[in-house]
Amino acid sequence: MSEQTNADVIQADNSRVLHSWSAQAHLDPFTVAGGSGCELWDYEGNRYLDFSSQLVFTNIGHGHPKVVEAIAAQARQLPTIAPATANAARARAAELVLQRAPEGFSKVFFTNGGADANENAIRMARLVTGRDKIVSRYRSYHGNTGAAIVATGDWRRIDNEYARGHVHVFGPYLYRTQFWATSLEEESERALQHLEAVIQAEGPSTVAAILLETIPGTAGIMMPPPGYLPGVGAIADKYDLVLILDEVMAGFGRTGQWLALDAFDVRPDLITFAKGSNSGYVPVGGVMVDGPIASAFDERVFPGGLTYSGHPLAAASIVANLEAMADEDVVGNADRIGRDSLGPGLHALAEKHEVIGEVRGTGVFWALELVTSRETREPVPGATIGAIKNACRERGLIVFPSANRIHMVPPAVVTAEQVERALAILDEVLAATA
Amino acid sequence: MSEQTNADVIQADNSRVLHSWSAQAHLDPFTVAGGSGCELWDYEGNRYLDFSSQLVFTNIGHGHPKVVEAIAAQARQLPTIAPATANAARARAAELVLQRAPEGFSKVFFTNGGADANENAIRMARLVTGRDKIVSRYRSYHGNTGAAIVATGDWRRIDNEYARGHVHVFGPYLYRTQFWATSLEEESERALQHLEAVIQAEGPSTVAAILLETIPGTAGIMMPPPGYLPGVGAIADKYDLVLILDEVMAGFGRTGQWLALDAFDVRPDLITFAKGSNSGYVPVGGVMVDGPIASAFDERVFPGGLTYSGHPLAAASIVANLEAMADEDVVGNADRIGRDSLGPGLHALAEKHEVIGEVRGTGVFWALELVTSRETREPVPGATIGAIKNACRERGLIVFPSANRIHMVPPAVVTAEQVERALAILDEVLAATA
Ligand SMILES: Cc1ncc(COP(=O)(O)O)c(C=O)c1O
Ligand SMILES: Cc1ncc(COP(=O)(O)O)c(C=O)c1O
Repeated sequence: MSEQTNADVIQADNSRVLHSWSAQAHLDPFTVAGGSGCELWDYEGNRYLDFSSQLVFTNIGHGHPKVVEAIAAQARQLPTIAPATANAARARAAELVLQRAPEGFSKVFFTNGGADANENAIRMARLVTGRDKIVSRYRSYHGNTGAAIVATGDWRRIDNEYARGHVHVFGPYLYRTQFWATSLEEESERALQHLEAVIQAEGPSTVAAILLETIPGTAGIMMPPPGYLPGVGAIADKYDLVLILDEVMAGFGRTGQWLALDAFDVRPDLITFAKGSNSGYVPVGGVMVDGPIASAFDERVFPGGLTYSGHPLAAASIVANLEAMADEDVVGNADRIGRDSLGPGLHALAEKHEVIGEVRGTGVFWALELVTSRETREPVPGATIGAIKNACRERGLIVFPSANRIHMVPPAVVTAEQVERALAILDEVLAATA
Repeated sequence: MSEQTNADVIQADNSRVLHSWSAQAHLDPFTVAGGSGCELWDYEGNRYLDFSSQLVFTNIGHGHPKVVEAIAAQARQLPTIAPATANAARARAAELVLQRAPEGFSKVFFTNGGADANENAIRMARLVTGRDKIVSRYRSYHGNTGAAIVATGDWRRIDNEYARGHVHVFGPYLYRTQFWATSLEEESERALQHLEAVIQAEGPSTVAAILLETIPGTAGIMMPPPGYLPGVGAIADKYDLVLILDEVMAGFGRTGQWLALDAFDVRPDLITFAKGSNSGYVPVGGVMVDGPIASAFDERVFPGGLTYSGHPLAAASIVANLEAMADEDVVGNADRIGRDSLGPGLHALAEKHEVIGEVRGTGVFWALELVTSRETREPVPGATIGAIKNACRERGLIVFPSANRIHMVPPAVVTAEQVERALAILDEVLAATA
C-alpha cells in the first residue's frame, strides 16, 4: 500500500465507488493512509490535523491502540454470529452503554448506524403509543433511510419524501429566529409555544413521538437555550408522547459530557446513538430503551430487526472505546478543551474576523456561522466555505464544512497545543478570505 | 471469557439486549463461544454443525483465518475514515464486487447491510425514472427500514407500513400456486401475465422499478422456473422500468454460482448485496450499479448517503473474503455439494419422510417444506418446526427454521462428510417427529 500515491488511490476509488450526497463528476479528491489521535497522513507523507473527526465520529481519535487490538482479538475469537444468539461482547457493550443512560433505561437495541437507530426508535414509539406521527425539527439530520430521511429537516429530505406520518417544527435558533424573538428566553418560550401549537393542531391523539437531536449537529450546533429541553419534556409528558433524543452525533463525549442530554434537565424515553459510541471503528448504532418501553416487548413481538444487530466485532469496539474513554478521561478532556481553549479561541477569532457572525458550541462541538454582513446576517455563499475548507487543508487542517458554516469538531482527545495550531491556521485563512 | 458458562452469557445478553423480531420474554437461549468452518462450539465445549450459516451469511465459514487477519491488519492501518475520502481498501472491494457483476456495471454504492442497500437501490430507481412505485413480491424479505420493510412481502411488513409507493404481486411458486397452474411452465407464464397485468393496472408511467430476490430466501427458496426471470426482464424493458435484483441472501456463492442471477438469462440494472460478500464478518452491504444509472449521478447529486458508506474495515473484509472464495474455489464447492450430496441427500429424506412436502434449492441453499398431509399440503404448525429445530440442536445440528420450513443452508465450504452427518441427524429427528 505504501507504494501507492495519493493520485492512484483517488483514481481507484472515485472511478468505481458511488459516493454519498455528491455529484460523482465533482468529488473532492483527498485520501488518508493512516492516522493517530488527531493526526492523519496521506500516502505522500503530508500530515493533517483532523478537526472534523471525519463525519464527527472519531471521538477517541484515530488508530487508538486499545480499540484496534480489541477488534483484532474479537475477530480471532468470534467475528460474527446471528443476533438471536447470546453473545458476551454484546452483553458487555449493552452494559457500558446503559451506564451512560438515565436511571431506569434497561435495554439496548443494536443497529448498524444512526439511520437505522432512528428507524427502530420511531418503530418502538409508534407501537407503544398506537399512533403514527413523528414531530421533528426543520434543521436536523436523522439518517438516509425511509423514515429517518423524512424526519430530517434539511435539503436531503426533499428528494426522498416517501414516508408518511412526519411533521416538522422550527426549533430555537435565536440567530435566525423564526419566532421574532429578541432574547434567548423569548426564543425558548416561543419555540415551545410553537411546538405545542403544532401538536394541538395535528391532534395529540395522532402523535407518537417528538424526535430531536439533543443539540442539532450538521444543521448548525444550535445550543438549546435553558428551559427548552425541559419544556419539550413537559409537553411530551402532558400529551403522553414518546420523547426520542437523537444523540448520534452529540453523544459519547462530543459535548464534554457522556451524553449531550446530561447538561439539560430532560428525561427522554428513547435515545439513539452511533458515531461516538465506538468512534466509528466498526459500523454500529443503537437505541437505548427506557424500562417501560423495553418491557412493552416482553410478551409482544418487536417487529424490527437486522442481520447484524449486536454484531460481536461492533460490540467489542464499543467496549474498548467506552473503557478507554473512561480510563483516559476523554470526556473530561473534551469539557476542558471547550471551556479553556477551543471555545475561548473561537470567540477570540470572532473578535478579529467580521465574517464570523456567531460562535456556538460546547466541548469539542463548535460551529462558526459565516456571514457577508453582521447586520443582515446573510450567509456567505457555498463557494466561500469551499475556499476556506481548501485553504485550511492546504495548510494541514481538516475542518467540517456545512452550509455557510465551518464546524470545528476535533476528536475529544485533542490537546490544547493542537487547538492552538488549528486556530492559527484558521486565523490565517480567514484573514486571507476577507 | 472461557470461564463463563453458557448460562452466564445468556443471562448477561438477554437481560440487557432487545432482540430482533422477538417477544423478549420468550427468547431462545443459545450461545456460541467460537467457530471454525462449519463448526461452532459453546462455552461448555459442546460442538455444533452450523447448517444455518447464522442468518445465511457465513458463506466462507466461521473464523476464516485470511478474513480474520485482513480485518486485524486493516484495523491497525486505518480502521475508519469518512466516506468522502478516497480509500484503497474500498476501491479494491468495489473492483472485486464488480468482477462478479454483469458486464457494464460500473460502480458500487456501499451501505452497512441489506436493508439500506435496498433503500438506496429504490432511491436510485425513483430518481432516474422520475416515478414512484416499486413492485415487489409477496413472500419476500428486503430489510427492516422504511422502504425496504414495506417492499417486503411477509408478516414483518404488517406493523410497519409507513412508506408509500409500494405494490405487491405474487411470484411463481407452483407448490402453492396462486395462478391455478398445473405445471412449471404454466406457473411461470401466468406469474408473468399477473405481473404485467398489475403494472398495466397501476399505470406503467407510475412504476419506477421491479424489485425481486433472484431466489426468494427466507420466504422459502422458491427456485424461479425457467423463463420467469427472462420474462421479468422483458417486462422491465417493455415498460422502461428499473429491474432491481436483491442478492443479499442468494449472492456470493450461496447458490453454487457467484451471483444467483448467473444461472438465469436476465440482466438487472441494480443488484443489492450484503451477507455473502464478506460472510458477515463486518456489517456491510451495497448496490452494484449499471453504467447508465451510475452516470446519471455524474452531474446530478445522489441524494443518499451514510456515515459508514465504504468503511475501510468492511471493505478489507470483502476483499479478503472474495479473494479467499476464489482461491479456495468455494463457489465450485457449493455447486458440487448441491448437486452431489446435499440435494440428493434431501431428496432421499423426502422419499422416507411423509412430512416433507417438497424439497427445493441449489448449491448450499435448500428448503424442506413440511406438511401435515401431502395431499392437502397443509403447513405443519410452528410448534412442530420449533421441536425439530430443538431436537436437531440437541444432537449438534443448527438448522434455519422459517414458517413451516426447515432451511438447510450451511457455509459454502461445507464438506460431503459434514453433509452426511447433518442429514443423518435430520433423518433421526424427522423419524422421531412422525
Ligand atoms: C444526528 C444524527 N442522526 C443520525 C445520523 C445518521 O447516522 P448514519 O449516517 O450512521 O446512518 C447522523 C449522521 O450524521 C446524525 O448526525
Ligand atoms: C433477501 C434479503 N434482502 C435484504 C435483507 C436485509 O438485510 P439486513 O438484515 O442486513 O438489513 C435480507 C436479510 O435477511 C435478505 O435476506
